[in-house]
Amino acid sequence: MTLARPASRRPVYFDCDTGIDDSLALAYLLASPEIDLVGVGTVSGNIDATQAARNTLDLLQLAGRGDVPVAVGAHDFLARRFTGGVPWIHGHNGVGDVTLPTAPRDPEAQDAADLLRALAHQHEGELSIVTVGPTTNIATALAREPGLPGLIRSVTTMGGAALVPGNISPVAEANIGNDPEAAVMLLDAAWNCTLVPLDVTLENQLFERDRQALLEAPSALVRALGAMLDVYFDYYVPLYGERSCALHDPMAAAIAVGGVEAVRAPAVEIVIDATDGPGRGQTICDLRGQRLGPVDRPGARHRIVLELASPLGPHLVERLLAFDGPEAAR
Amino acid sequence: MTLARPASRRPVYFDCDTGIDDSLALAYLLASPEIDLVGVGTVSGNIDATQAARNTLDLLQLAGRGDVPVAVGAHDFLARRFTGGVPWIHGHNGVGDVTLPTAPRDPEAQDAADLLRALAHQHEGELSIVTVGPTTNIATALAREPGLPGLIRSVTTMGGAALVPGNISPVAEANIGNDPEAAVMLLDAAWNCTLVPLDVTLENQLFERDRQALLEAPSALVRALGAMLDVYFDYYVPLYGERSCALHDPMAAAIAVGGVEAVRAPAVEIVIDATDGPGRGQTICDLRGQRLGPVDRPGARHRIVLELASPLGPHLVERLLAFDGPEAAR
Repeated sequence: MTLARPASRRPVYFDCDTGIDDSLALAYLLASPEIDLVGVGTVSGNIDATQAARNTLDLLQLAGRGDVPVAVGAHDFLARRFTGGVPWIHGHNGVGDVTLPTAPRDPEAQDAADLLRALAHQHEGELSIVTVGPTTNIATALAREPGLPGLIRSVTTMGGAALVPGNISPVAEANIGNDPEAAVMLLDAAWNCTLVPLDVTLENQLFERDRQALLEAPSALVRALGAMLDVYFDYYVPLYGERSCALHDPMAAAIAVGGVEAVRAPAVEIVIDATDGPGRGQTICDLRGQRLGPVDRPGARHRIVLELASPLGPHLVERLLAFDGPEAAR
Repeated sequence: MTLARPASRRPVYFDCDTGIDDSLALAYLLASPEIDLVGVGTVSGNIDATQAARNTLDLLQLAGRGDVPVAVGAHDFLARRFTGGVPWIHGHNGVGDVTLPTAPRDPEAQDAADLLRALAHQHEGELSIVTVGPTTNIATALAREPGLPGLIRSVTTMGGAALVPGNISPVAEANIGNDPEAAVMLLDAAWNCTLVPLDVTLENQLFERDRQALLEAPSALVRALGAMLDVYFDYYVPLYGERSCALHDPMAAAIAVGGVEAVRAPAVEIVIDATDGPGRGQTICDLRGQRLGPVDRPGARHRIVLELASPLGPHLVERLLAFDGPEAAR
């Protein structure tokens, strides 16, 4: 299923709800020599899981990576139904209403949770998980295979809002807020997660000049990203006062790859509000006692990224523009 | 019960859990020519309500204001019992273990909620409420007299944490967190509250040079404040990295009096988390859409103070030092 690759390329499983910034993250992973994308699972969020898989297959095809397995994951969340995506942010098809060439293949027969399990065994102790949607598939994989954490190298999750407002409620960010029960399972599992919240993703942007550069890229995939960002940029005008976008999902990818460095990412207790109260979906991070500088709390297993050493935008654009055009030859 | 005063002095009812910073707030109110302190109710919080009343009587006596009625209020909160104060912050007696001369009088026979109700009728449409402890007494007064808001001019409450960590949980501030059910009643009532949260109170400090100045003040009350701040300053060393203190309670007093100006205090939806979940006691403020500047949300009745035009500390010290010494002559 996978091509030969240098032993130094770390295998990555990517779980997404593709999505415009999911597409950016996917392209970043494909463009990163440090890792090898060995599988993608989809989940409902920005769009339903089935459409997210179609988008992912088509994007991979544009990059000449029809070899990467894509599995459809959870349509509904653990405790609640998926009630529809966010077409006013990501377009009606999830990729900014850009029509991508339809890839001549279908998703895997197994679901995303089972694809993750299979890859975890195949790459025992080596696999990194990057999630940029609700963590429903990860929770399902944990439920089916409680020993999963012992097989995994690292988990990086885009999600949460620590000291900034949420985006689906005053305190809840969409990925965690859409499936808090799954997030509880993610954080309860015996691995150390790196959480990449709105606190830092909203502070890193792409601008119109970046989008124009992507539209001229050698890669057909990257040019498609430039096209789909048009819709996404419109959404952010009220927030930033200009056409641009936050870099949510690509930041989780870049942190997992090691392409950017977090300078403030303390290990703190993180509790998910999974009540039915007004705080449902909040990632309650215990950031008391951090005023004088980041402090790792004894016993805390999960890190929350609050600040990068340098902005993600220029690094992301540089890597996407360097991505080779004749990908079909790979 | 009250002395003759210029008509321009607005009557203020002060509800407190005295407390070192409550003492600062009390002295500030006494030192403010804009208002007349017409009554004080106490509640458990920093210390139990009975001791808080004793402290308040003794502080008033030091200022020669044995005329201000003091009523003991709720010992326990609406849904939970008071489990003891915070002697490691405010000392064992609530006033930094400073021994105050015992005032030769006792609290009123009526409780704090009934004192508030009586004052509200006496000063119909004119009375301002300033709360710097749990809002249990206010909730009790509202339960006894649902028409109370129609009698009141303004409500200013020290409490909450919007975009900063809490101080009794990762998200809950002590005043709201100790009695969330009372805070729900406060915010549901038909008045517009001004909430003064940790976001702004932690950004305003007193320093050792200020304390030394207070120790030399003409007023015996203010010199006592300087003495009790010794204990309080110790508590803040791990937070600020130096001996100093936050200005929680005096800020609510100063905002109610008009002594300081809030430059960022948007009217937003505020919901109290009164669940038994991990967010219990949180003041969930909908601060989405405020990145480009403060925006009043349509229909929102309550303001949350996030930034002052100038620091409170210098204004507070100036007013306390100008407070006349021979107060007993008043």
